[in-house]
Amino acid sequence: MRAFRPDLTDRSRQLQDLETPCALVDLDRLSTNLDAMASYTILHGLALRPHVKTHKSPRIAAEQVQRGAVGLTCATPRELEVMAEVSNDLLLAYPLLGAAKLARVMQLPREVRLTVGLDSMIAVDALATAARAADRDVRVLIEVDMGMHRVGVQSAEEALALAMLVRASAPLSFGGIMFYPGHIREHVDEQHGALDRLRDDLGHLITLLGDAGLPPTIVSGGSTPAAWRMHEVKGVTEVRPGTYVYNDRTTAAIGACGWDDCAFTVLGTVVSTAVPGQAVVDCGSKALGREPMRGTPGEGFGALLDRPEVVVSRMSEEHGILDLSATDWRPRVGDQVRIVPNHVCVVVHLNDTIHGVRGDQVESLWPVAARGRAP
Amino acid sequence: MRAFRPDLTDRSRQLQDLETPCALVDLDRLSTNLDAMASYTILHGLALRPHVKTHKSPRIAAEQVQRGAVGLTCATPRELEVMAEVSNDLLLAYPLLGAAKLARVMQLPREVRLTVGLDSMIAVDALATAARAADRDVRVLIEVDMGMHRVGVQSAEEALALAMLVRASAPLSFGGIMFYPGHIREHVDEQHGALDRLRDDLGHLITLLGDAGLPPTIVSGGSTPAAWRMHEVKGVTEVRPGTYVYNDRTTAAIGACGWDDCAFTVLGTVVSTAVPGQAVVDCGSKALGREPMRGTPGEGFGALLDRPEVVVSRMSEEHGILDLSATDWRPRVGDQVRIVPNHVCVVVHLNDTIHGVRGDQVESLWPVAARGRAP
Repeated sequence: MRAFRPDLTDRSRQLQDLETPCALVDLDRLSTNLDAMASYTILHGLALRPHVKTHKSPRIAAEQVQRGAVGLTCATPRELEVMAEVSNDLLLAYPLLGAAKLARVMQLPREVRLTVGLDSMIAVDALATAARAADRDVRVLIEVDMGMHRVGVQSAEEALALAMLVRASAPLSFGGIMFYPGHIREHVDEQHGALDRLRDDLGHLITLLGDAGLPPTIVSGGSTPAAWRMHEVKGVTEVRPGTYVYNDRTTAAIGACGWDDCAFTVLGTVVSTAVPGQAVVDCGSKALGREPMRGTPGEGFGALLDRPEVVVSRMSEEHGILDLSATDWRPRVGDQVRIVPNHVCVVVHLNDTIHGVRGDQVESLWPVAARGRAP
Repeated sequence: MRAFRPDLTDRSRQLQDLETPCALVDLDRLSTNLDAMASYTILHGLALRPHVKTHKSPRIAAEQVQRGAVGLTCATPRELEVMAEVSNDLLLAYPLLGAAKLARVMQLPREVRLTVGLDSMIAVDALATAARAADRDVRVLIEVDMGMHRVGVQSAEEALALAMLVRASAPLSFGGIMFYPGHIREHVDEQHGALDRLRDDLGHLITLLGDAGLPPTIVSGGSTPAAWRMHEVKGVTEVRPGTYVYNDRTTAAIGACGWDDCAFTVLGTVVSTAVPGQAVVDCGSKALGREPMRGTPGEGFGALLDRPEVVVSRMSEEHGILDLSATDWRPRVGDQVRIVPNHVCVVVHLNDTIHGVRGDQVESLWPVAARGRAP
């Protein structure tokens, strides 16, 4: 579709000029990833409401909107506030609790249509009270547990009861249901069973709500791995993938993208080769997070972009140990490496800024504007 | 000694008024912890050069200096720049590599005596070149591996060779040696062997350096668990503990502090009780990190301050699952909890601000000023 063109503030710099550790995004891969999900959802008639938790950047969110996203999904008040600059249709896929947080979110620009996902009567009551005080319409999605066992009501009957409570709690309105199929991975065969169960449970729930006069306008699924399968689940109207913009070592390992679709890396420098059999880089848990591979086997906390057989096998806060047992490569102190992290969303959250690159050329620098919690 | 008295900007607030997740520090416990390490080092005639990586706060660093710290230990250029406001004697316990980073650090105020720890000839050469260009004296500590196998030269002979190179590389000067005994824990009996080996290896190294006309002025050990044992190791002149200011679930579990010495908690709110047997709080990996217990058994990623038997057993980015199987306590949606994290240093790094509290009273708010990498 269109190339990602951020401000060219940094065009004169090369990777070797950057201080490490720092976060890099390959701008060509980012464009490809943005296009791929947009095309998939257009092809299958699914609404795309990407989750901004991965990039936390209004400029990337704007690229998503320009490619047809109907709105954006957020997890925090900070994300809502920043993304209100980009979209007037925001879903907080998270219960809103606590007086300070409720009051803060009710102050979003009035032209923003706010939708909130929740799974409890207490959350409905708190939201209704705040919405009334702010004289603000708020749409509600009931979160249902479709097998991940994290949050979400446990039965269709509970969902219906909560939907009826929402209907009776003006200025709230019932918008539909949401679920997070994080337990469904792309390429694992036995998970066809999980997909079948999802179809059955969702069909039953939609029927029950419809029979009660509360047909869900929105049936929102999500997550990058499962997003590519959501057209196979009847009734789903929208998806909320986040990770697909950057992808990561896990997304590639489970087959939801290729290694060449990994757009995000952490640039590091080898700082010590003193201990035999390893090289130490300046990317530890404060730069890479300490996320395991998810839903797929795989050692370590990240792998080199151009040598995926070399993994970060141990970490301290500011040290990452590259295990050299699977390679003949012997780096020197001062060499730079690019590491694909296991879970990109937590790594973005560790950075204040991101460098946009093509090859070794640094083209841009943008803030991770929605990072943190501050108002 | 003296009570920690930050600015009283927030005295009117209670915990229930705060947005969650957020970071809390119990100010009384902080004072106790600061006093305890200061007293220990004074008692045993050890220099205290605390590592600021844990708090990243100049105001807590100032409290450490006021209690007798000879200087501060840093890991990043950002930490050096912020801590130069507080102390004129800074150790960068990390090799300095890359032109941008070297140039940045050479711009520290000239009244700061800078010491750098390193373990390679390349790092010596790079530092000497930058120091010459900046016309700046820099003291060097040779990092030696005393059993942790992370960084550090592998033999006394290598340490001597590097020390001789430093001596020949004006304006660098040889200051001594440093090691990080992160493998030595407080209460584990079989580690008396590790302590014995440390004594032997260190004695041999100090003798070798002395015989070569390079007696180390500084022999710097460190880490909170091992700090309390360093008076048992002849030759050690200073310690570099960081975690002791706040402590955490690991520090308590290994016996290096009591549970009541844990000063740092993450305040969270119960957001869902929909799935039986668990409660979900708004503290996930973006609030707690995903650190295991270190050097000691223990499940989960944190435990409740007032119910240590309740642990965060699973996490997503913004969800933490409290396992309720070991308790009769059944929280309600909207209840607040205080979580002691497994590893406080990485949690501080996730926060822009910290609330100082006494009981339920919020007394102050301070920035984590040295967080991040930005100049």
